[in-house]
Amino acid sequence: MVSEISALFKEIRTKRTLVHHITNYVTVNDCANVVLAIGANPVMADDPVEVEDMVSICDALVINIGTLNERTVSSMIKAGKRANEKNIPVILDPVGVGATPFRFQTAETLLKEVRFSVIRGNMAEIKVIAGLQAKRAGVDSLEEEENGVSIARTLAQKLGCVIAITGKVDVVSDGNVCYNIFNGHTALTRLTGTGCMSSSLIGCFLGSSHHSLHSAIAGIVCMGIAGEIASQSGGLGSFKVALMDSIALMDDEKVLKSARVEEANQ
Amino acid sequence: MVSEISALFKEIRTKRTLVHHITNYVTVNDCANVVLAIGANPVMADDPVEVEDMVSICDALVINIGTLNERTVSSMIKAGKRANEKNIPVILDPVGVGATPFRFQTAETLLKEVRFSVIRGNMAEIKVIAGLQAKRAGVDSLEEEENGVSIARTLAQKLGCVIAITGKVDVVSDGNVCYNIFNGHTALTRLTGTGCMSSSLIGCFLGSSHHSLHSAIAGIVCMGIAGEIASQSGGLGSFKVALMDSIALMDDEKVLKSARVEEANQ
Amino acid sequence: MVSEISALFKEIRTKRTLVHHITNYVTVNDCANVVLAIGANPVMADDPVEVEDMVSICDALVINIGTLNERTVSSMIKAGKRANEKNIPVILDPVGVGATPFRFQTAETLLKEVRFSVIRGNMAEIKVIAGLQAKRAGVDSLEEEENGVSIARTLAQKLGCVIAITGKVDVVSDGNVCYNIFNGHTALTRLTGTGCMSSSLIGCFLGSSHHSLHSAIAGIVCMGIAGEIASQSGGLGSFKVALMDSIALMDDEKVLKSARVEEANQ
Repeated sequence: MVSEISALFKEIRTKRTLVHHITNYVTVNDCANVVLAIGANPVMADDPVEVEDMVSICDALVINIGTLNERTVSSMIKAGKRANEKNIPVILDPVGVGATPFRFQTAETLLKEVRFSVIRGNMAEIKVIAGLQAKRAGVDSLEEEENGVSIARTLAQKLGCVIAITGKVDVVSDGNVCYNIFNGHTALTRLTGTGCMSSSLIGCFLGSSHHSLHSAIAGIVCMGIAGEIASQSGGLGSFKVALMDSIALMDDEKVLKSARVEEANQ
Repeated sequence: MVSEISALFKEIRTKRTLVHHITNYVTVNDCANVVLAIGANPVMADDPVEVEDMVSICDALVINIGTLNERTVSSMIKAGKRANEKNIPVILDPVGVGATPFRFQTAETLLKEVRFSVIRGNMAEIKVIAGLQAKRAGVDSLEEEENGVSIARTLAQKLGCVIAITGKVDVVSDGNVCYNIFNGHTALTRLTGTGCMSSSLIGCFLGSSHHSLHSAIAGIVCMGIAGEIASQSGGLGSFKVALMDSIALMDDEKVLKSARVEEANQ
Repeated sequence: MVSEISALFKEIRTKRTLVHHITNYVTVNDCANVVLAIGANPVMADDPVEVEDMVSICDALVINIGTLNERTVSSMIKAGKRANEKNIPVILDPVGVGATPFRFQTAETLLKEVRFSVIRGNMAEIKVIAGLQAKRAGVDSLEEEENGVSIARTLAQKLGCVIAITGKVDVVSDGNVCYNIFNGHTALTRLTGTGCMSSSLIGCFLGSSHHSLHSAIAGIVCMGIAGEIASQSGGLGSFKVALMDSIALMDDEKVLKSARVEEANQ
């Protein structure tokens, strides 16, 4: 797996992958810069009037519900449907999906209307998505699951997409195989937007390679290794600078050397 | 006072205080990071459909009118009222309140509909709030006041909340006692968002301690000491990085050593 | 020319030029900080209810269509018209104008309703504006032009404003004279918002000097020299910090020494 994903790091720097984001205004600048740092190009547009046109000229679409409102939810649905029509891969980052009914209902609508290639969230968010699916299917047994590998695999099978759960150990499954990623650093949890940025990186790799499993792993490995390198620096401000530097300087050789990815048994 | 507020710095790092922001999109990323740096957690949500649900699971609410619009003003009122019902403290940052009638009327409405624990602004903003109150009460003598201590104390009494005026020397009053804070550095005035970040820090301390006066002083002292430390660095970019580092590395001992807070005589 | 523009750097630090932005939420924080770094003051406000009041107290208006929506387009038109009435200079940054019909139509409306002092974009954006003008005038010969000097001069004459095309070599024309700027560094293309920041800098100089040609050149030279200095630093994160530092530390003497501006022959 490590050699497959390291190849993606080489590829991404030779293409001009364009990634459309409908995302939150808290971390949007960092997402744009992380996309540039890895060698792709970001575009942000969120009005219902233009999102279908915008996504049509892009290679991937990242939908992030961090600061959603009724206008942008409408844009997410429109853009997602158009992306599906054009075979442009779509990534969902269900930020805080369990926090309010509005977020829950938005995720429910998005999952009904749009076909996603990858859904990336933390364990709490993915559990809500899993419960949501369970509820819709009249099954709620997933609610009791504590095991990430099992949750990821089962949900991936149900939704027919790659599920990525980021945390202390990350879990990525396409419903068939399942991988654990051991890269990362706790400092990543004390900087806003590292989850959003991981989703943006997945969007870059997916727009470039069209391989959902490899792209999800590549994006998460990239953030993890960069976090490890950046953790050498001082406080939160220096860490953020070093994180961006590390992503901009990431290459296939560093990934080959530092990626810690293992197939998960279960 | 310094020992009381230094204790808040110890406390904040042991809790997971969650602070809801309805704030401007200019400085929102820095506010989120400053909240993480001090040891609390930020959440941003601004749609009328979800703000009541969101604030209900939080420990404090920060309302900042920096880039208000009609949709978010409605959210501010809804979230503020719900917070009041649930005894969740609310902080107002009346950014540029004197610049346009829309900002003035929004502040007027907010003061009528929502009970604030702390209002933090610069002298111009607090004077507008004071005049606004005076106007509503049919009294305009405050308009002529030049003295921060008097303005802060009188307005705090009228509104029944803590008033914090930040500037060269900061003034904080609960209507009874009044304190001057001598920490800070002029470099803080040449970086966007240091006022917004101070209000966010106050929100963190208030969500953790529920003591309005101590929290207002703690937030302002934190930004002031961090600004002093960061002023050693080069230009505006380095200053911002060093400011975040300093806040992330702030602790009760540094505060005990460096805070310069004195009760104001009058 | 270099001595004229270096004088603007001296002047800007002695005034408190206030620059109103109706801009995108991706790069808005960096625009605010770059305005502070050069010695001016930013204000961001985008609701139709208040933009006319806000622009009336400012020295310049920057309209940037990076993340436009129907509400903010209405604000752009209102603010632009009011600025024209009050002789407050207006800068247009037509971000991605060729990407969607909505952006194209917005630019068309803005050009019909508002008189701009400077339009700054990359070659692709300016070509779209030029074609747009050509179309409206029933002339499409500009479409075939490849030469920046000719495009800038012709479009400047048609629109009666200064046209600035930023790229490897920048081109600025008022329709009469035309200048090439040879400052800059490729690293500027790998950081989001350097174009937006250049437009904001032009807004600062224009609000201070009211000289469109000199201000456009000064803003672009400032970003170019700062990019050269910052390129010494490591990856993208360090580059951004160093860029802000360099702008904050820029002065007339550095500009006199480092600016590479030549009148373009044609």
